[in-house]
Amino acid sequence: MSSASSAVPARSVRWSGDEFGTLTLIDQTLLPVEFRENEYRTVEEVWEAIKMLRVRGAPAIGCAAAYGMVLGLQSVAQASREEFNTRLAAVADYLAGSRPTAVNLFWALDRMRSVAEAEAALSSSSMLARLLSEAQAIEIEDREMCAAIGRHGAALLNAGDGVLTHCNAGGLATAGDGTALAVMFAAAAEGKQIHVYADETRPLLQGARLTTWEVMQRNIPVTLICDSMAGWVMKEGKIQAVITGADRIAANGDSANKIGTYSVALLAKAHNIPFYIAAPSSTFDLAIATGEEIPIEERKSDEITHGFGRQTAPAGVDVYNPAFDVTPASHIAGIITERGIIAPVTTENVVSMVQR
Amino acid sequence: MSSASSAVPARSVRWSGDEFGTLTLIDQTLLPVEFRENEYRTVEEVWEAIKMLRVRGAPAIGCAAAYGMVLGLQSVAQASREEFNTRLAAVADYLAGSRPTAVNLFWALDRMRSVAEAEAALSSSSMLARLLSEAQAIEIEDREMCAAIGRHGAALLNAGDGVLTHCNAGGLATAGDGTALAVMFAAAAEGKQIHVYADETRPLLQGARLTTWEVMQRNIPVTLICDSMAGWVMKEGKIQAVITGADRIAANGDSANKIGTYSVALLAKAHNIPFYIAAPSSTFDLAIATGEEIPIEERKSDEITHGFGRQTAPAGVDVYNPAFDVTPASHIAGIITERGIIAPVTTENVVSMVQR
Repeated sequence: MSSASSAVPARSVRWSGDEFGTLTLIDQTLLPVEFRENEYRTVEEVWEAIKMLRVRGAPAIGCAAAYGMVLGLQSVAQASREEFNTRLAAVADYLAGSRPTAVNLFWALDRMRSVAEAEAALSSSSMLARLLSEAQAIEIEDREMCAAIGRHGAALLNAGDGVLTHCNAGGLATAGDGTALAVMFAAAAEGKQIHVYADETRPLLQGARLTTWEVMQRNIPVTLICDSMAGWVMKEGKIQAVITGADRIAANGDSANKIGTYSVALLAKAHNIPFYIAAPSSTFDLAIATGEEIPIEERKSDEITHGFGRQTAPAGVDVYNPAFDVTPASHIAGIITERGIIAPVTTENVVSMVQR
Repeated sequence: MSSASSAVPARSVRWSGDEFGTLTLIDQTLLPVEFRENEYRTVEEVWEAIKMLRVRGAPAIGCAAAYGMVLGLQSVAQASREEFNTRLAAVADYLAGSRPTAVNLFWALDRMRSVAEAEAALSSSSMLARLLSEAQAIEIEDREMCAAIGRHGAALLNAGDGVLTHCNAGGLATAGDGTALAVMFAAAAEGKQIHVYADETRPLLQGARLTTWEVMQRNIPVTLICDSMAGWVMKEGKIQAVITGADRIAANGDSANKIGTYSVALLAKAHNIPFYIAAPSSTFDLAIATGEEIPIEERKSDEITHGFGRQTAPAGVDVYNPAFDVTPASHIAGIITERGIIAPVTTENVVSMVQR
C-alpha cells in the first residue's frame, strides 16, 4: 500500500490499470482534516480498509470488495482453473468476514463468484480479466444507480426545505454521488435552494467528518448539529424532510442503518416530517422477512470512551456500542431506489420494485 | 486560585474557614481522567468557573454563586455599608452574567441580596458574616433537598429497572446527592437493583465524564451509550424509566434542560416509558407561563467541531449549538421535587406544589 496527498477531491473507489493494476481508495478515517488516497495492491490491505472503515458505505464497500477479489487473484493468473477457483472461494470468504452487516459486500462477492462459475471454460488469466470487467461494471452501475436515485428523490424536496441526514450516505459511500446525498445534490442541481442539516453521528462522526465535507464541496448550505439536537431542530421548524441511507433492508422495508437512524425516524414521525431511506435495490435482502432477523454488529467500547484522541469516560466503564439499528417500515414514508420510490413501504411494494 | 489533587471524591462545593475563607470546587472539566479541586479567593475566579462549566448543574451553580458573593465582598468588610451595598449590587450583577439560563443562579443571588437589604443596620463586617451564614444555609438546604428528592423519587422505581439519564444531574451538580441521580441512589440504597444507562451527552459529554463516574463511585451498575442510541435501547426493552434534571421550569411544567432532553422525552413517550424530571422547587420560574418564554443559550461552535481534543469537522463549517431545549409538560410523567411529586404536570399542580 502506498499513499498520496492531494487537495482535489477524487472518487472514493478507483481502479488503475489492467487486471494486474491497483485499487485506490480515499482514506475516510482521515477526513476532513486530511485528504489522502491510498493505493492497495493486496486483498489483505483491502480487508483491513473495509474493517477499519477507511472505505465505508454499503455500495462503496461492494465496489472495493469486488476489486479486492481481483487483487487477491492476481497471484493465480497463471495457475490452473482449479487452483484459481479454490483461491477465489477463499478470497471471497475472507472478504465477506470484514463487515458482517453490509449486504452489498455479500452481493458483490456473490456476483463475482457467479461470473467465475458461469465461465468455467476460461483460462485463469482470461478469467482474471473477466472479473476485472465485472468489478468495473459494478462500479459503473453504482454510479448510474446514484444518479437515478438522485433523479427520483429530488422530486420529494421543495425549494427552501431544510433536509436532515444522519451518518454519511454520500459520494464517499458509493462510487457515484451517493444515495441520500445524491437526492440533495440532484435537488440543488435542479435549482431548489435547500439547506442540509447533518447529524454529527457518534461514535465515529461520519456526519461531522464526511457529510459536511461533501456538501460544502458542492457549495450547498450545510449546518452541523449533534445527534441530540435533531429533535429540537425539528421542533424549531428547521426540517421539512429527513433522508438517510441504509445498510440492509428486509422484505417488508424494515431498514438497518447507522445507530441513531431509528431515533431520528421516530422524532421525524412525532413532528409529522417525512422520513425517507435512499438505497439501491442491492441493499434489499428479500430472504429476510423483517428487521427482526437482521443481526446488529457490536463494536468496541473505545470508539465511545476514547473517540477522538482523548479519554472521555472513566477507565473500565461498561459501554454498549451497537453499530446499527433497525427502523421499522411503518416509520418510513418512502424508500428511494434507482428504480423509483417505494411508498407506502409494504412487503408487496418492496417485492414488486426489487424483483422486477 | 490554587489547586490540589486527590484520589478521594469530595463535595462539589465547599467553603473553608470564616467569612474571610475560601471556596473549593471540583474542576468538573477535568473529570473523569483527573480529579482536581481548585481553591478560589476572588469573585472573578468564581465567575470564570461558572462560565467555563468547572462548576455546573443548577443547584451547584447557585451555591457557588452565593459563596462567590462572599468572596467579592471580603475587600469591603471595613468599608461603609453604602460602599458595601454598592459593591454587593455590582458583584451580584456580575455573577448573574456568567450563565444566562441558570435560574438557580439568579435565585441564589436574589436571596443573598434580600438578606443584605433586610439587615440594613448591620455593619459591613457583620453583614459579611451574615452573608456567609446565608450561603451556608443555601448549601445545607440544597443537601436536604437532594435527600428529599431521592426519597420521593425512589418510590417510582422498581427492582430490576433500567433507568436512563441525560447529562449530569448528580452530586456534582448540587451540594448533595444530586437530583435525578439522587433518585437512583436512593432506590439503590433501599435495595432495589437498578441498572443506570447514561447518555454521553454531546457536546460536552457530561454523561460520559461525570454521570458514569458518580454512579461507579456508588457501585451501581452503569452503562454508557451515545445519545443516538437512546431510542434503540428503549426499543430493545432495556429502559423502564427516564429521569433527568432541569435548569428552568415554567409555571406549566415545560422544562428547559441540557440539549437532547427533548428528544429523549419524545423517544420515551413513543415507547410508553415514563419520563421524569427531578428538580428542586428553586428551579421553577412561576413568572413565566410556558417554555416558549425560556431563552435558549447558544454556545460556541468549537464545542462541536473540536470537542474531543481533535478537529472533527471541516474548517469553517456552519454549526448550530443550542445548549438547552425545552421539553413540553405534556411529555413529562412527573416532576420530582423536594416537596413531593407533581403529577400530572399541570399549571395548577405546579403552582400548588411550588407556592405552598
